[in-house]
Amino acid sequence: MAVRLAELAVRFGCELRGDPEVCVDRVAALENAPAGALSFLANPRYLKHLATTSASAVVLDAASAAACPVPALIAANPYATYARIAQVLHPDAAFNGGRHASAVVEGGASIDPTAWVAAGSYVGRNARIGARSYVGPGCVILEDAVLGADCRLVARVTLCRAVRIGDRCVFAPGAVIGADGFGHAPDQDGYVKIPQVGTVLIGDDVDVGANTTIDRGTIGDTVVEDGVKIDNLVMVAHNVRIGAHTVIAAMVGIAGSATIGQRCMLGGQSGIVGHLSICDNVALTGKTMVSRSITKPGVYSGNLPADEARSFRRNSARFQKLDELARRVRRLEGGLAEETKEDTDE
Amino acid sequence: MAVRLAELAVRFGCELRGDPEVCVDRVAALENAPAGALSFLANPRYLKHLATTSASAVVLDAASAAACPVPALIAANPYATYARIAQVLHPDAAFNGGRHASAVVEGGASIDPTAWVAAGSYVGRNARIGARSYVGPGCVILEDAVLGADCRLVARVTLCRAVRIGDRCVFAPGAVIGADGFGHAPDQDGYVKIPQVGTVLIGDDVDVGANTTIDRGTIGDTVVEDGVKIDNLVMVAHNVRIGAHTVIAAMVGIAGSATIGQRCMLGGQSGIVGHLSICDNVALTGKTMVSRSITKPGVYSGNLPADEARSFRRNSARFQKLDELARRVRRLEGGLAEETKEDTDE
Amino acid sequence: MAVRLAELAVRFGCELRGDPEVCVDRVAALENAPAGALSFLANPRYLKHLATTSASAVVLDAASAAACPVPALIAANPYATYARIAQVLHPDAAFNGGRHASAVVEGGASIDPTAWVAAGSYVGRNARIGARSYVGPGCVILEDAVLGADCRLVARVTLCRAVRIGDRCVFAPGAVIGADGFGHAPDQDGYVKIPQVGTVLIGDDVDVGANTTIDRGTIGDTVVEDGVKIDNLVMVAHNVRIGAHTVIAAMVGIAGSATIGQRCMLGGQSGIVGHLSICDNVALTGKTMVSRSITKPGVYSGNLPADEARSFRRNSARFQKLDELARRVRRLEGGLAEETKEDTDE
Repeated sequence: MAVRLAELAVRFGCELRGDPEVCVDRVAALENAPAGALSFLANPRYLKHLATTSASAVVLDAASAAACPVPALIAANPYATYARIAQVLHPDAAFNGGRHASAVVEGGASIDPTAWVAAGSYVGRNARIGARSYVGPGCVILEDAVLGADCRLVARVTLCRAVRIGDRCVFAPGAVIGADGFGHAPDQDGYVKIPQVGTVLIGDDVDVGANTTIDRGTIGDTVVEDGVKIDNLVMVAHNVRIGAHTVIAAMVGIAGSATIGQRCMLGGQSGIVGHLSICDNVALTGKTMVSRSITKPGVYSGNLPADEARSFRRNSARFQKLDELARRVRRLEGGLAEETKEDTDE
Repeated sequence: MAVRLAELAVRFGCELRGDPEVCVDRVAALENAPAGALSFLANPRYLKHLATTSASAVVLDAASAAACPVPALIAANPYATYARIAQVLHPDAAFNGGRHASAVVEGGASIDPTAWVAAGSYVGRNARIGARSYVGPGCVILEDAVLGADCRLVARVTLCRAVRIGDRCVFAPGAVIGADGFGHAPDQDGYVKIPQVGTVLIGDDVDVGANTTIDRGTIGDTVVEDGVKIDNLVMVAHNVRIGAHTVIAAMVGIAGSATIGQRCMLGGQSGIVGHLSICDNVALTGKTMVSRSITKPGVYSGNLPADEARSFRRNSARFQKLDELARRVRRLEGGLAEETKEDTDE
Repeated sequence: MAVRLAELAVRFGCELRGDPEVCVDRVAALENAPAGALSFLANPRYLKHLATTSASAVVLDAASAAACPVPALIAANPYATYARIAQVLHPDAAFNGGRHASAVVEGGASIDPTAWVAAGSYVGRNARIGARSYVGPGCVILEDAVLGADCRLVARVTLCRAVRIGDRCVFAPGAVIGADGFGHAPDQDGYVKIPQVGTVLIGDDVDVGANTTIDRGTIGDTVVEDGVKIDNLVMVAHNVRIGAHTVIAAMVGIAGSATIGQRCMLGGQSGIVGHLSICDNVALTGKTMVSRSITKPGVYSGNLPADEARSFRRNSARFQKLDELARRVRRLEGGLAEETKEDTDE
C-alpha cells in the first residue's frame, strides 16, 4: 500500500527532509531500490550506497541525513523505525472472522468471531482462540489450549493440550508447543515414562520459528516471558524459563529446568545444560555450550573456529595431551614462582 | 482420578506408613503440593522440602521415611514407582474406537476397531493400525505402514511407506519416520539420487520426540530396538541401529550406518559420525562428537565449556598453534627423557 | 519391475558380461542379495563380498569385473550407474493427475492436469503446480507459491507464500520453505519485527530433507541453486545463497546472508556464521563452525573428538589457561628467536 511521507513522519515521529507528498509503497535495499521504495541506513557500512540510491525515501539518523540525496525520514533508531514502517507497507493479508468449511472444531471450543480458522485445521474441546487471531491451514490446537488475541499461526502449527499463549504471538509452520517433556525413570528393565502434567505458558509478543519445539513441564510449567523471539529448530525442554526479550537463534537447545535471564542473546546451535541459570544480559556466540551457571552479564564463547583439517587434526591431537604438556612446562620451570592455581589442584 | 493409598500400596508393591483411606488425585512437587497431591523424594537434594510438604502422601525410600510428616509409600525405586502412580493419576484421555468423519482411509487399510483415527488424518493403502492405538489429528500414515497396539501418535506425525512400529510406542507431533535416507552418488554433472529401498523397524515401548526424524534404510533397514527413548529434533540417519533402552537427548545427530549399543545415554546435541559403532553402556555428555568407534563402556566428552569471549578467543588463537607450542616445549626439554609418544609420531 | 540386463546395458551405456536374458527386479547388498537382485561394487572395501554374492548381476568397474562370479554390468562410475538403475527398479508409485476430494484448492490456483494433490492438502490463491508434480497428503502450499514440474512433496510439506521451486525437486515430510526470516530491530522496550518481504528461490533437482527449514529473505531472496542436496533438520536462514551441487548433511545451520559456493560438502551439525562466504569446493567435517570466510578450497575442521570424560575435563581445564601456558613457554625460551607472530600480537 502506498503511503505519503508526511503521514509516515507524523505517525512514527520522524523529522522529514524533502517533499511530504512523495509516496512509498514497499521497502527495498539502498543499493537496488526502485522508485517508490523506502530504504534505510542503520549501519555505517552501507553508507557507500546512500549517494547513489534510487529509493524514494530513506530512514536514517540525523548524522547521515545531510548525505542523503533523496527525501529523508530522520529517526533516533532508524532500524526500528524502518521496521515499523515496513509493517505498514507490507501488512499481513487481511482476513475475515470465521472458519473454513473443512476446519474441525470440537464441542466447547470458543473461537472469537473475529478470528479465522483455516482449511484443514483442528480445534479441540474447550480450546479458546482470541480476537483477530489467525489460525492458518493445517494447524492442530488440542483440547483446553488457549490462544490470545492478534496471534498468527502461519500453517501446520501444533498447540498441545492446555498450553496458554498470550497476545500478538507469531508461530511459524511446524512449531510444536507443549509436547511431553522428556522424562523417564530408570528401572531394572528399562525406563518408565513420567507423565508430564505441567504445561507451557507463553507471554505476549513472542515469536516462535519453524519446526521449533517447546515442551510442557513435568510438574509446574515451561515459561516463555513477554517479547521473547525464538528462531527455527530450537529446542526448549520442560520446565525451562526464558526471561523477557531474550532472543534465541536457530538450533539452540535448552535442557530441562534451565533458567535464562532477560535480554539475553543466544547464538545459533548453542546448548544450555539442564538445571542451571543464566543471568540477564548474557550473549553467547554460536555453538557455545554452557555447562555452568553464568552470573555475570557479558559475552561468552566456547567453540573453536574452523581451520584446515590437517592443521586442526594436529592441534587436536595435542589437545588430547594438553594436561601432560602443562605438567612438562611446569617441570621445566622448576616448580618455582610460576606454579599456578590449576597445578596445585592436581 | 482419586485413588486410595491402600490401593496404590497394593498395586505397586509399596509399604504404606499412614492412613490407607487417604486419597490422592494428582501429583505435585514436594515444595508446593496442594492437599490431595502425591509427591515423591528420589534425590537427597530435595530432602529439605520434605519436612514442610503439604502433599497428602509421598513416595520415597525406606531411609527417608522416618522424616516424612505425611503418609508415605515406601519403594525401592521411588522415582520409577512415582512414575507408575503418576500414570494412573494422570491417564491419557480415553477414546473410543473408530475414525473421525474427516479422516481419509484408503482401500486395503486395516484399522483395529478399538483404534481411533482423528480428524484430518490420512491412512494409506494397506496400512495397518493395531488395537487401542490412537492416531491424533493431522497424522499421515502412508501405504503399507504397520503400527502396533497401544501406540499413541499425538498429532501431525508422519509414518512413511512400509515402516513397521511395535507396541506401546509414543510419537510426539512433527515426528517423521521413514523419510528417504540421504544418499546421492556423485556424477560428473552433480548427484544421482540413490533410491532408499529399506525401511524403518521400531520395536516396542519406543518414544519419539517432537520433530525428530528417523530415515529409512538405503538397502536393509534402520532399526530402533525396544525401549529406546528419543527426545525432540533428533536425527537418525539411514541404516543406523540403536540398541535397546538407549536414551537419546534432544538434537543428537546419528549419521548413516552407525551402530549404537544398548543402555547408552547420548547427551543433547551430540553427533555420531557414520559407519562407526558405540558399545553398550556408553554415555556422552552434551555436544560431544564421536568420530571413532567406542569399544569401552564409560563416559565420554568432547566439547569445551563456555568462557568469557575475550578469554576464549585468546586461548582459541593459541589452540591454532598448539602443535607448534608442543614442539617448542620439547625443544626446551632438550629432547630428553620427557620425549613422549605423540612427539615421536610426528 | 523386472528388467533384462541387455536392456539395462543399452540404456545406461554399460558393457555387459554374462547372459543378457537374465532379469533383475530389485536392488540388494552384495552380501545378502537374493536371486533376482542387482547389486553393485563401488568401494574396494566390499570386494570380499563379491566372490560369494548371490546377486543375479553386479554393477562394477572394469578392474573388478574379472572377479565377478555372476553377470556384470561394467560402468565407469558404478555407484552413479547403480543409482540410475535402482531408480528404474524401484520407481516412485505412479499416480494420476487430479486431486483428492478432501484437498482444498483456492481460487486462482493453477494445477497442471497431470499433477496430483493428495488428501488433506491445501493449495492457496494463485499458487501454481507444474506438470506431473506430486503433492502428498497434508501439504500446505500458500498463496502465490510456484512449484515446477516433476516435483515430489512426500507429505506434510509447507511451501509458504510466493516461494518459487524449480523442476524435479523432492521435499521430505515436515520441510518448511519460506517461513519468515529471523529479523527483529532492537528498541527500547524489546524488539520490532522486520517484515520479511523477500522470498525463496529454489532451482532444479534440489532435494530437501525432513523437517528442514529454509527461510525467506528480508529484502531480496534466499537462493538455493540447481542440484543442491539438503538433508534433514537443516536450517537455511534468510538471504543465504547456496551454490549449485552443494551437499548439506543433517543439522547444519547457515546463518543469515551467508554465501556458500558450488560443490561444497557441509558435514553434519556444522554451523556457518552469517554474512560470510565460503568459496567453491570446500568440505567441512562434522560439527565445524565457520566464523570467517573461506577463500581457499579444501577440507576444514573445527571440533574436538570425544575422549574419556575425565581426561577431556583435565585437558579442557588446561585449555582455559592455554594463553598463559604459551606465555610461560615463551618466558622459558627467554624471548629469543622462537618468539612467534602470535606472541608479538599480544
